[in-house]
Amino acid sequence: MRNDRRKFLKGGAAAATGAAIAGFPMIAGAQQTFNWKMTSAYPKGAPFYMDGPGSATDLARRIEAMSNGRIKITVYGAGELIPALEGFDAVRSGTVEMNHANSYFWTGKTFAAQYFTAVPFGLNFQGMNGWLYDGGGIKLWHEVYAPFGMIAFPCGNTGVQMTGWFKKEIKSIKDFNGLKMRIPGLAGKVYATLGVDVKLLPGGEIFPALERGVIDAAEFVGPYQDRRLGLQKAAKNYYTTGWHETATVSELLINKAAWDKLPKDLQAIVENACAACNVISEAWCQRTNAEAMEELIKKEGVIARPLPDDVIKGLRAATRKVLEEAVAKDPATRKVHNSYMAFKAGYDSWAGYSEAVYHSKIRGA
Amino acid sequence: MRNDRRKFLKGGAAAATGAAIAGFPMIAGAQQTFNWKMTSAYPKGAPFYMDGPGSATDLARRIEAMSNGRIKITVYGAGELIPALEGFDAVRSGTVEMNHANSYFWTGKTFAAQYFTAVPFGLNFQGMNGWLYDGGGIKLWHEVYAPFGMIAFPCGNTGVQMTGWFKKEIKSIKDFNGLKMRIPGLAGKVYATLGVDVKLLPGGEIFPALERGVIDAAEFVGPYQDRRLGLQKAAKNYYTTGWHETATVSELLINKAAWDKLPKDLQAIVENACAACNVISEAWCQRTNAEAMEELIKKEGVIARPLPDDVIKGLRAATRKVLEEAVAKDPATRKVHNSYMAFKAGYDSWAGYSEAVYHSKIRGA
Repeated sequence: MRNDRRKFLKGGAAAATGAAIAGFPMIAGAQQTFNWKMTSAYPKGAPFYMDGPGSATDLARRIEAMSNGRIKITVYGAGELIPALEGFDAVRSGTVEMNHANSYFWTGKTFAAQYFTAVPFGLNFQGMNGWLYDGGGIKLWHEVYAPFGMIAFPCGNTGVQMTGWFKKEIKSIKDFNGLKMRIPGLAGKVYATLGVDVKLLPGGEIFPALERGVIDAAEFVGPYQDRRLGLQKAAKNYYTTGWHETATVSELLINKAAWDKLPKDLQAIVENACAACNVISEAWCQRTNAEAMEELIKKEGVIARPLPDDVIKGLRAATRKVLEEAVAKDPATRKVHNSYMAFKAGYDSWAGYSEAVYHSKIRGA
Repeated sequence: MRNDRRKFLKGGAAAATGAAIAGFPMIAGAQQTFNWKMTSAYPKGAPFYMDGPGSATDLARRIEAMSNGRIKITVYGAGELIPALEGFDAVRSGTVEMNHANSYFWTGKTFAAQYFTAVPFGLNFQGMNGWLYDGGGIKLWHEVYAPFGMIAFPCGNTGVQMTGWFKKEIKSIKDFNGLKMRIPGLAGKVYATLGVDVKLLPGGEIFPALERGVIDAAEFVGPYQDRRLGLQKAAKNYYTTGWHETATVSELLINKAAWDKLPKDLQAIVENACAACNVISEAWCQRTNAEAMEELIKKEGVIARPLPDDVIKGLRAATRKVLEEAVAKDPATRKVHNSYMAFKAGYDSWAGYSEAVYHSKIRGA
């Protein structure tokens, strides 16, 4: 008996970590289960975030499958358990163990959180992963959330988003002045400095507002998601540039005290599931956006093009000013900003020899 | 006892799958361990493939951590257990359960395997993942390997590779005629149609051959790996274009009979670990290549640039011809080719609105 038990423990199972059941001291550990809740900032069934490859429900399914049911995660869409944007407080207080969303929703708590989702004129998917996994990004993310008793992992990415839908063509930076546009977050702040009348509307209200002329322009995500809302029926100028969100990261936010209770093998399962969903969700976006963009252009009369160069120049200058102000105000933001921008400088130069050449000289027929 | 046992089985553990030890019928199942061997086509310690984030050893470590030691994988570098390129036969025969390499080493067994690594003028990292995960690529991979009793998963990516090192500047397609170049695989076949005298040399022999003038040019991987071999000391013209390997996929090849013996949770662990290593290894390449390229250009006098446009045009035409011949010969290759190219047509168009615009108008300062 003793020998069997020793061999068994040496086998490396979680036997030692769990509570014991009389007569089955070793089974108990191996079988300890965790019933966790995961809330989301997005409604039930929302493609990409809630449904489909690499989404919140897929992430939960992968974790459950890998752990053979030792972690069971119930996923709640926005409003099912808590309102859409209360995930930060819910995870912080331990009401739920996890929230699936984007860190830039929490800039009111700590502005540095912006950098773990996307900053305007920032890194693309490949560069962002370079910074997150290998350039100190995830470490800084944990550092920024430590005072709140939380950690987070990247668990999805939309790839480069589109600038959005405009009723009238944008010919110069002056055309932004007085324009009523649905645009949330930091990009909204940048547009506001250029005279845009920034409107905050939930996804479902964008189409009617744009159709009725309550707004002149709207940003949402990219071809697949935008087309699903029907935005192409309300405006035909689709600016593709995606300066504002160059690779939007999904965040799995986790209560640190709950995390610390997980055995190491289950922590590894959660962390690897997040990385898997990161690449798999972005792959899904490439396919669905390609299909949707073709429909929009070939069948729905959409004019898709980048913003004029001088408009991009104006947006870039306005972005720099907004970020400089944020950095000046807060040491945590400065630290994250400096790490991000140092990595970006290296990536930018390398991309000029690699991916940029791929797209300009190799990709097309 | 009965109730306890029933509850336990209901818990979803692997209890039912394993062999029983007297007195501990349920532990045995939960604890069944698999001692597997993973060979590699690359030598022990080789960066990216054998060492570092997302490498073969990191993949094995992740699988072991997630399974809490229920899968233990001993990783062997090339030549340690079998010669470098015998992984296909070793996994097929069941001598080893897994091999870590690239599918294009197996084009002698089935030419279709080329498409699961990289084809010249093919998809980049984002497009390739779109096809593999979401465009039927992985399914076709399994279909192609089914007659050999194997399956495979993508488990790494180098990103876009560099065209290579040339003693003399390449000004026209005619400069390839008679050029002695180290270039393996399909790209070698393409160069051969343009008069290149193709040389096959292992990594360690490239530098001395290039330095002594035994060869005039050499392709290896990208800035980090190439610089490690010292190629910049033997030739100064570094062509960046990367037409031949636009996003080289690492392959985890698995014996299907061994795979079928794994409980579902362990299968899920292996599959998700591969996806995690896919994105994490590519992230590592972005950082290390950025750093190495800066050193090469700023400190080692390397001239880095794309090939002239008419040379690229010639290579593209030669590639098309070589692929057409391969497709005409083999129905399996034709099926994979058609799936790949159909996906690529959609991705190419979409990338023109998304990543291409990012690189040409948004990324730089």
